[in-house]
Amino acid sequence: MTPYSEMSREEREKELALVKEQFEELKARGLSLNMARGKPGKLQLDMVSDIFNVFQKPEDFLSDGVDSRNYGEVTGLPAAKRLFAEILDCKPEQIIVGGNASLQLMYDTISKAVTHGLLHSPRPWSQEKEIKWLCPSPGYDRHFKVTESFGFTLIPIPMTEEGPDMDAVEQAIQDPAVKGMWNVPKYSNPQGIIYSEETIRRIASLKPAAPDFLLMWDNAYCIHELEGEYVPFPDILSECAKYGNADMPVEFASTSKITLPGAGVSVLAASEANIQYFTELLSVQIISFDKVNQLRHVLYLKDKAHTLELMQRHAAVLGPKFRAVVDALDREIAPLGIAKWTRPKGGYFVSLDALPGTAKRTLALCKEAGVTMTGAGAAFPYGKDPQDSNIRIAPSLPPVQELEQAIEILCVCLRLAALEKLAA
Amino acid sequence: MTPYSEMSREEREKELALVKEQFEELKARGLSLNMARGKPGKLQLDMVSDIFNVFQKPEDFLSDGVDSRNYGEVTGLPAAKRLFAEILDCKPEQIIVGGNASLQLMYDTISKAVTHGLLHSPRPWSQEKEIKWLCPSPGYDRHFKVTESFGFTLIPIPMTEEGPDMDAVEQAIQDPAVKGMWNVPKYSNPQGIIYSEETIRRIASLKPAAPDFLLMWDNAYCIHELEGEYVPFPDILSECAKYGNADMPVEFASTSKITLPGAGVSVLAASEANIQYFTELLSVQIISFDKVNQLRHVLYLKDKAHTLELMQRHAAVLGPKFRAVVDALDREIAPLGIAKWTRPKGGYFVSLDALPGTAKRTLALCKEAGVTMTGAGAAFPYGKDPQDSNIRIAPSLPPVQELEQAIEILCVCLRLAALEKLAA
Repeated sequence: MTPYSEMSREEREKELALVKEQFEELKARGLSLNMARGKPGKLQLDMVSDIFNVFQKPEDFLSDGVDSRNYGEVTGLPAAKRLFAEILDCKPEQIIVGGNASLQLMYDTISKAVTHGLLHSPRPWSQEKEIKWLCPSPGYDRHFKVTESFGFTLIPIPMTEEGPDMDAVEQAIQDPAVKGMWNVPKYSNPQGIIYSEETIRRIASLKPAAPDFLLMWDNAYCIHELEGEYVPFPDILSECAKYGNADMPVEFASTSKITLPGAGVSVLAASEANIQYFTELLSVQIISFDKVNQLRHVLYLKDKAHTLELMQRHAAVLGPKFRAVVDALDREIAPLGIAKWTRPKGGYFVSLDALPGTAKRTLALCKEAGVTMTGAGAAFPYGKDPQDSNIRIAPSLPPVQELEQAIEILCVCLRLAALEKLAA
Repeated sequence: MTPYSEMSREEREKELALVKEQFEELKARGLSLNMARGKPGKLQLDMVSDIFNVFQKPEDFLSDGVDSRNYGEVTGLPAAKRLFAEILDCKPEQIIVGGNASLQLMYDTISKAVTHGLLHSPRPWSQEKEIKWLCPSPGYDRHFKVTESFGFTLIPIPMTEEGPDMDAVEQAIQDPAVKGMWNVPKYSNPQGIIYSEETIRRIASLKPAAPDFLLMWDNAYCIHELEGEYVPFPDILSECAKYGNADMPVEFASTSKITLPGAGVSVLAASEANIQYFTELLSVQIISFDKVNQLRHVLYLKDKAHTLELMQRHAAVLGPKFRAVVDALDREIAPLGIAKWTRPKGGYFVSLDALPGTAKRTLALCKEAGVTMTGAGAAFPYGKDPQDSNIRIAPSLPPVQELEQAIEILCVCLRLAALEKLAA
């Protein structure tokens, strides 16, 4: 196959006719496939559903003398704190164990900064004229939506293979209106990038003009390898503390993709001073989170080693799905020179950069042929990809056979959109 | 026994010496008893713990075609909406089913009013100069803390036997800075008062100056009778709609005292316009609440009739505890004329008004003798009881035998504090 850019106009016209025909054929199949969100598949859900069998008798609901079924322990069961501290490589005293959704813990952290201010805030953020926020892009659309919802000005920061462009970050934080930054430091969403040690060092040693700069550290994929062994990763809390920034980071994680997305446990990790501050605010908001579910997770996951074994079983289900996507792209698209994509070793996404100006069109074509994808531009602040190029592929939900059909359709749509663009 | 006020000084001195001796005897027992919070007792927790056995096979996790284990359905499982709509006598379209804590739903409703504004707000409340809030008192301390935490000015409204003093409420809402009001309309916390039909009519037909007046309707004890049959109660949503106030109320309830405080399900009910507005905001905050727990409740509680049967079993445990408290007060305190108390037919509290100026002292004495009670003044805005008279008794947690010991101590402390006061 010849790269499209090297084809003659005539060759491209011929190819366009051929690809159009393929597209119509695929469309005629009337499929309904979904690669939109990072949802685990049914096989993964069934695999962990024995988590619901851990309680057998009333005594099982006790943990460190606490009856998990009653009110109390607003910051979570001690045993759950120990489990997550081991997984995140921090101290149990640095942990709050929450409800089923880490997104809610993140939203609430920012919401409380707005309504009450953070530990080092001169005033609640609602009393500031403008709040600016750093968004490494492409990034997680739900992160960007949270800060957009509070009316912050979102500032895109380019992603490099080592993480956010730190020159840009170090420049931006000299503005005292810049109050924080989103991060998915391990297997970033959507590119699967692991922040390098140097990036983490530069982040931990930032000297922001804002005294209450909030480093949002969403360690969503902290133990979510797709292949190979667990990759150790620095603890951001102690890294920041080294540089006098102990209270700057707030870390988040959850078991949404360890046990169950609809019924997992979330966790917040921060300095002890922050934990004390957040606990005071949290005590007004809730008497306690679902401690029975916390204990269920403690009894099921046991410890880090046992949890990593479970993650290997998830990887055994997910690995082939990711390979199906990347293999198809290698085979169908690579020779044509119309897109680049990541080969993630963990996380839940493949990030693809199509020919600039063709992402929206590609996804419209996918939809026409029955494949739902994350909306074009979603990985950028305000949903606007300046290049109209980035496409997020979420291979986790469909069974492999459906996935192969979906990716076949995506490949044809990429080709069709590229040929249309080159003909224009 | 002679009422203390009718005793001669000599008689009172004799009585004081006697009561002091009793107090020292009780103190010497070194007890540690708790009547501080409305926590269900172990018997109640064990009684409902078969809720954790409802799932047997993977298909059980499906509900209306939705896999409860995965992401999705931000407003809750349809089946859970139907269950709570039946219990609250409203429509499933008027329901959002949340996490384990209705307090969190309440906090979030007010927090979003502050950060984003409500459906009819001219601007977010954070941009208002002052927010005033009506607090029927005595009331629920955690309610008052939420509005205090956001810096609102709390305005006490006297409680009558029919609910809040509506003359005072109708007067207060003419101030556009008055943005809302707390309510526990059935078996109010702590007095166990049921709002009368006339009170509800006057509330539903309020014409507040604020266009975004928020009627917080915490129906915490909606089906929580302590004796006798279920008492039907008007649906505040349709009542308000009758008077053109469809978007004014937001109702809350939970299964914290139906199933488990630490692992129940919460619910928000409001007009369909409000539900749509809140859903948009909620979609930024969370992908979905714990739907497995929602489905667990649907399968366990089944429907309203079946849920009411369960509540009768709770009443069979709680009734004797409440009678133990009230009987002891009738026997030990009534003849002395030093306090009045409620005889609740539902809810979780007995409210006692001691001789003015003796509540704090009584509770300090209780603590000295090993009985922890809710702090004096807790039922009033800013924790300040102007009369220093109100004491909230929570009889639900201790087993009857412990409760009898605790109430014996309370009675002696009430007498001691009264005698000290009368001697002063």
